[in-house]
Amino acid sequence: MTKQIKLAHGNGGAENNELISKVFYKAFKNEILEKSEDAAIIEDGKLAFSTDSFTVSPLFFAGANIGKLAICGTCNDLAMMGAKPKYLTCSVIIEEGFDINELETIVESMQQELEINGASVVSGDTKVVPKGSVDKIFINTTGIGEVLKSGISSNKITDNDIIIVSRDIGTHGATIFASREGIELTSDLKSDCMSLYPIVKKLLDNDINITALRDATRGGLSAVLNEWANQSNICIEVEEDKIPICDEVMGLCELLGFDATSLANEGTFVLAVNKGDSKVTLDILKLFNNNASLIGKVTNTHPKKVVLNSSWGTSRFLETPTGELLPRIC
Amino acid sequence: MTKQIKLAHGNGGAENNELISKVFYKAFKNEILEKSEDAAIIEDGKLAFSTDSFTVSPLFFAGANIGKLAICGTCNDLAMMGAKPKYLTCSVIIEEGFDINELETIVESMQQELEINGASVVSGDTKVVPKGSVDKIFINTTGIGEVLKSGISSNKITDNDIIIVSRDIGTHGATIFASREGIELTSDLKSDCMSLYPIVKKLLDNDINITALRDATRGGLSAVLNEWANQSNICIEVEEDKIPICDEVMGLCELLGFDATSLANEGTFVLAVNKGDSKVTLDILKLFNNNASLIGKVTNTHPKKVVLNSSWGTSRFLETPTGELLPRIC
Repeated sequence: MTKQIKLAHGNGGAENNELISKVFYKAFKNEILEKSEDAAIIEDGKLAFSTDSFTVSPLFFAGANIGKLAICGTCNDLAMMGAKPKYLTCSVIIEEGFDINELETIVESMQQELEINGASVVSGDTKVVPKGSVDKIFINTTGIGEVLKSGISSNKITDNDIIIVSRDIGTHGATIFASREGIELTSDLKSDCMSLYPIVKKLLDNDINITALRDATRGGLSAVLNEWANQSNICIEVEEDKIPICDEVMGLCELLGFDATSLANEGTFVLAVNKGDSKVTLDILKLFNNNASLIGKVTNTHPKKVVLNSSWGTSRFLETPTGELLPRIC
Repeated sequence: MTKQIKLAHGNGGAENNELISKVFYKAFKNEILEKSEDAAIIEDGKLAFSTDSFTVSPLFFAGANIGKLAICGTCNDLAMMGAKPKYLTCSVIIEEGFDINELETIVESMQQELEINGASVVSGDTKVVPKGSVDKIFINTTGIGEVLKSGISSNKITDNDIIIVSRDIGTHGATIFASREGIELTSDLKSDCMSLYPIVKKLLDNDINITALRDATRGGLSAVLNEWANQSNICIEVEEDKIPICDEVMGLCELLGFDATSLANEGTFVLAVNKGDSKVTLDILKLFNNNASLIGKVTNTHPKKVVLNSSWGTSRFLETPTGELLPRIC
């Protein structure tokens, strides 16, 4: 590893994984942490426990703000483990001089999103630091969820599973990028930021055989698929033309040379479900977003690899993102 | 309230309380939060849940560093509710360019302190932000503890209780101040930063009738006593000459006009225990620090007030600290 932290160490991709394993996992080594995915499973499998700090810039963007994002992010991590978000803590670090009206707007957005999840903030912390010590406001939320369905894990995906994405990808990353760079889009492009628990609840209520769930945040779809391929020692083969990407995101990607599969999402998740349940899963997902799509299958062709098949019959490996596309995306 | 956040909004005193109640409690309003003290009590009283973000500057100081502090801070909040620290999350926000060796030292300190508490970090998050967006590194730890003795609360202190402080006060605040201002002390002054669970465990093992416990962090001893007087609708009368203050802290306070009772501590706690248990409590505390002292009693003279009696027979009210003595103390 290099001797200094680089932006890429926070990209949700290869360098991020290296920092986590070589510094944090090495020191904190324990069985629960090793098995931890989006959330740790504790108390004999009864509870899920997850943390996230939010540093997004700008604080307010099309579709959400840092407050809504901070609740969605942590509640979604719990939902991805088959858990119902229940108790959250909220810890804010605020820069001296920050506008109290903006703070109120942010906190109100948090409460609205908590209600969607049926969760409550039960404890908090407020730190104020001198001007220049932090850029405006950072928020940490940490949540406890009640596990409704145990055993959801990215370690046991097999060729009995198919891979589905819940909606079109990349809108959060594209929105933040456009907003940051002052790109005026005449379109309706907005972040996908939303709480996923209501969708997960519907899937569980319908007894879908879910093998794994993961929200495609930093590192996007390609980070999730590569992590899954690696953890389950499988090959995931994806049909490129089945990956839903809206025109606005596609346009921005073509303009700037981005790959939509690496763009961050904040309300889009990937599912590995039993083949037999693919139709009913898609039917349920389409109640929430009509762009849900079956994008791929699991094979043994290239273990630990993700293969992207184009409609022209060519194929290539889809790699874990490296470098830093855009810091402070979440 | 003012329209902008001021440093005083993070002081652990009057302005801090106002911000919390008018912005956060107002939006997040719920029964658990309202009853929450150092930690929230959840799951039918079985678990304690607490969060803290650490922004201390400098990162390394006499007696500890931000890593040790981040584990002590959250574990102590759990211990103060009679809980054994069990699971923690660790979320770091790191500035681009931060030295990885320093990060490793910090994380190793965290692990050492976790072992003292018998707790584990089970989930984490790592964000890297561009240079200038954060000053070096901020760490959030959020913990779940197993409640060993329920009912410890600052709402029910009565004149059957006496007030004890576990050791001499103010060393953390004084250490950070001296270090920040480049005051070279020829003394051994160092932060009191330490894990309090082992002491609490010993008290519980000896069946001490504990009414309330509170570590005297931001706002110091005077913030804790005022909060207790207010919450239990009592008067706390403190004998000034019984408050243990070491020579170095006393010297710094005299030099700079500080009041040691407002200085932050990170390993010093206040106890309200049943009168009959005062001797055995002091005996146990003195096993850990010989400066433990019975400092006061509970009366009905001035409800919701703290009275400081001097050895000359005069007395004055000890008020909740206002303004900001020293930002980024923790």
